[in-house]
Amino acid sequence: MRVSDRVLAMQNSPIRKFNPIAAEVKAQGTKIYHLNIGQPDIETPSVFWEAVKGFDQKVLAYADSYGLPELQDAIIDYFKRFDMNLKRNHVLITNGGSEALTLVFLSLLNPGDEVIVAEPYYTNYLTFIQAADGVVKPVTTYAEEGYKYAIKERLEKVVTDKTKMISIVNPGNPTGCILSREDMKVICDFAKEHDLWILADEVYREFAYDGREMTSFGQYPDVEDRVIIIDSVSKRYSACGARVGCLVCKNEEYMAEVMKIAMGRLCVPTLDMVGATAMYKMDPSFFNEVKKEYEHRRDVTYDALKKIPGVVCEKPGGAFYIACKLPVENAEDLLMFLLKEFRDNNETVMYAPMEGFYATPGLGKNELRIAYILNADDMKRGVELLGKGIEAYKAAGHK
Amino acid sequence: MRVSDRVLAMQNSPIRKFNPIAAEVKAQGTKIYHLNIGQPDIETPSVFWEAVKGFDQKVLAYADSYGLPELQDAIIDYFKRFDMNLKRNHVLITNGGSEALTLVFLSLLNPGDEVIVAEPYYTNYLTFIQAADGVVKPVTTYAEEGYKYAIKERLEKVVTDKTKMISIVNPGNPTGCILSREDMKVICDFAKEHDLWILADEVYREFAYDGREMTSFGQYPDVEDRVIIIDSVSKRYSACGARVGCLVCKNEEYMAEVMKIAMGRLCVPTLDMVGATAMYKMDPSFFNEVKKEYEHRRDVTYDALKKIPGVVCEKPGGAFYIACKLPVENAEDLLMFLLKEFRDNNETVMYAPMEGFYATPGLGKNELRIAYILNADDMKRGVELLGKGIEAYKAAGHK
Repeated sequence: MRVSDRVLAMQNSPIRKFNPIAAEVKAQGTKIYHLNIGQPDIETPSVFWEAVKGFDQKVLAYADSYGLPELQDAIIDYFKRFDMNLKRNHVLITNGGSEALTLVFLSLLNPGDEVIVAEPYYTNYLTFIQAADGVVKPVTTYAEEGYKYAIKERLEKVVTDKTKMISIVNPGNPTGCILSREDMKVICDFAKEHDLWILADEVYREFAYDGREMTSFGQYPDVEDRVIIIDSVSKRYSACGARVGCLVCKNEEYMAEVMKIAMGRLCVPTLDMVGATAMYKMDPSFFNEVKKEYEHRRDVTYDALKKIPGVVCEKPGGAFYIACKLPVENAEDLLMFLLKEFRDNNETVMYAPMEGFYATPGLGKNELRIAYILNADDMKRGVELLGKGIEAYKAAGHK
Repeated sequence: MRVSDRVLAMQNSPIRKFNPIAAEVKAQGTKIYHLNIGQPDIETPSVFWEAVKGFDQKVLAYADSYGLPELQDAIIDYFKRFDMNLKRNHVLITNGGSEALTLVFLSLLNPGDEVIVAEPYYTNYLTFIQAADGVVKPVTTYAEEGYKYAIKERLEKVVTDKTKMISIVNPGNPTGCILSREDMKVICDFAKEHDLWILADEVYREFAYDGREMTSFGQYPDVEDRVIIIDSVSKRYSACGARVGCLVCKNEEYMAEVMKIAMGRLCVPTLDMVGATAMYKMDPSFFNEVKKEYEHRRDVTYDALKKIPGVVCEKPGGAFYIACKLPVENAEDLLMFLLKEFRDNNETVMYAPMEGFYATPGLGKNELRIAYILNADDMKRGVELLGKGIEAYKAAGHK
């Protein structure tokens, strides 16, 4: 009656494992600024609700395993903005980007196969890769360098004959690091040279700031047979609870293989796909306001962070995260202090400690990820609480 | 750029792989009676739609990885009907029963670990078990015996030192075979003796006919630490497209382990959980009408099948499937004939050929599964088409 070795090797989500403690704190009447989870406060577009509430079938039936054809078509149209010409069998609708990732790793990795991932990484990648008995091969990045990873020599150092793929999140979670066209070229060439799959998680695609171009790895025809793109409505349309994502790949042989697993799990919820269709069809101008708002939040958050003595971070160019080094030894220990001991006007703050975002033991202990998903005033106050908390933490004799 | 060995070993769903051909046939104007998929025609309860349409939050946010607490509570209340006392951390909400099964196998099986499964089995079990690099150890059952499998000597024959669990679907898919209390005792004792997990997929729990008792493996306290129950709204409430299921287990150490994977995939869609909550709260009298209707359909379907010369089948006691042996050599070949050549009044019929439901090579070639999910008249007509199709198939020189 043992459990599997793979599940024993997994960690509790470093993002979600503190939720039970947070619930207790809130029950005591303390306000917590939740900068720990990428849950935007932007309203889900009204077209989503209208589409869902207008659904008038009497039987909520299974959908096709590929997803609703009208959603596939809306996604195909969306990708035309990036000069990509997709067919329906290139687009598999999934239960959020998360299921798409699980499907990719299960369909590509044999036990022991290696995946190159820049660390710190979105921590659930480790879980998804472990679920497929694969191994994370980290390319370490540094706060001082803005967490850059598209550096050929560093990638070459970690590639082995067991490397099956390189896994990219662009714009990046947890670092907000965003690839330039040159960076993308470096990765494409590297993948070709070593015959690797490129997994391109682009769920933050529109969140590119300071006039940066929105891009996709689907725009590089010379690697189109080896690129698998992950997309999702969660962040882009502030619809995290819809759990609608997709896996996009022009390699039809691959799609036929991954569909075997997708058919086994039957399909994605119909209503959420109906709502997602309406969102994918929205005019791209929808993003203008949203992007402006996030850019402002980033600026406010970054400025506030820089005011805390000893914090190391570069201004990130995309997504809605800032990762940084703190002037304390242990960011998880500080978080426990913030939750259990520190209060300012009966308020405190949560973030994601980043040790669990690293594969290399010992790294990330003094780093954190902040999601700037609250309004600018709340972000400012949240970071202020962090600064005051650090002060109190040190005054209490912690290092 | 190879794919994984596990996905190469998988088959296309024997239930869904003919859908593209069926779509062509329908495009030509031919009506198909779909007896191949367990998609009921019963209307989804109005409480589901009311709950979904009454949802009034502005931001569709991530839910907790365990699921909505109100849905957990509704499920806890539901299981009280079976004298089970559950706590919230015994109930993990999943993307349909399918995701629950995937989570179970990933969390229990090491590569090469064996799962005892009665064959013919619900074919996607093979996919789920292969996804976890596990091995199906079949206990062969027979149409002539009503596909019974709770037979100690036969179970003993397949157990090895690699056996980790026994996997039960009760009432059964694809056979409709239902366990008596004595049968359940046989399985519990067997599991205890060999220290196995019991995976009890009970999504058809209410579909127990001829006055049979509705049961759960959760009613056996002496195995409660080793029983994992799978539940779902799909069949019970005719809400297949909601994709809401759950994994129920009183072993809290196990729940803590499986939650690591569940946290990685974040959560289940919020709206569907809101609707599911309303359905789980319905009065149990809801099932009376539904059960009567299915029992009637079963009788009509069974009687019609028995009229086809050479068909071998016993009347099943539960779920909404009938499996049987046909008087032809190859049920898949017959299905292709029905789709491509046979027409009666421009109508034809689809069923699920069962070869893909067996692990033992060569078995099931002449067997099929019918889902009695259409109204009685349509079921009658569908089986009539099958009979006429077999006649035409033989007249065309096929065996």
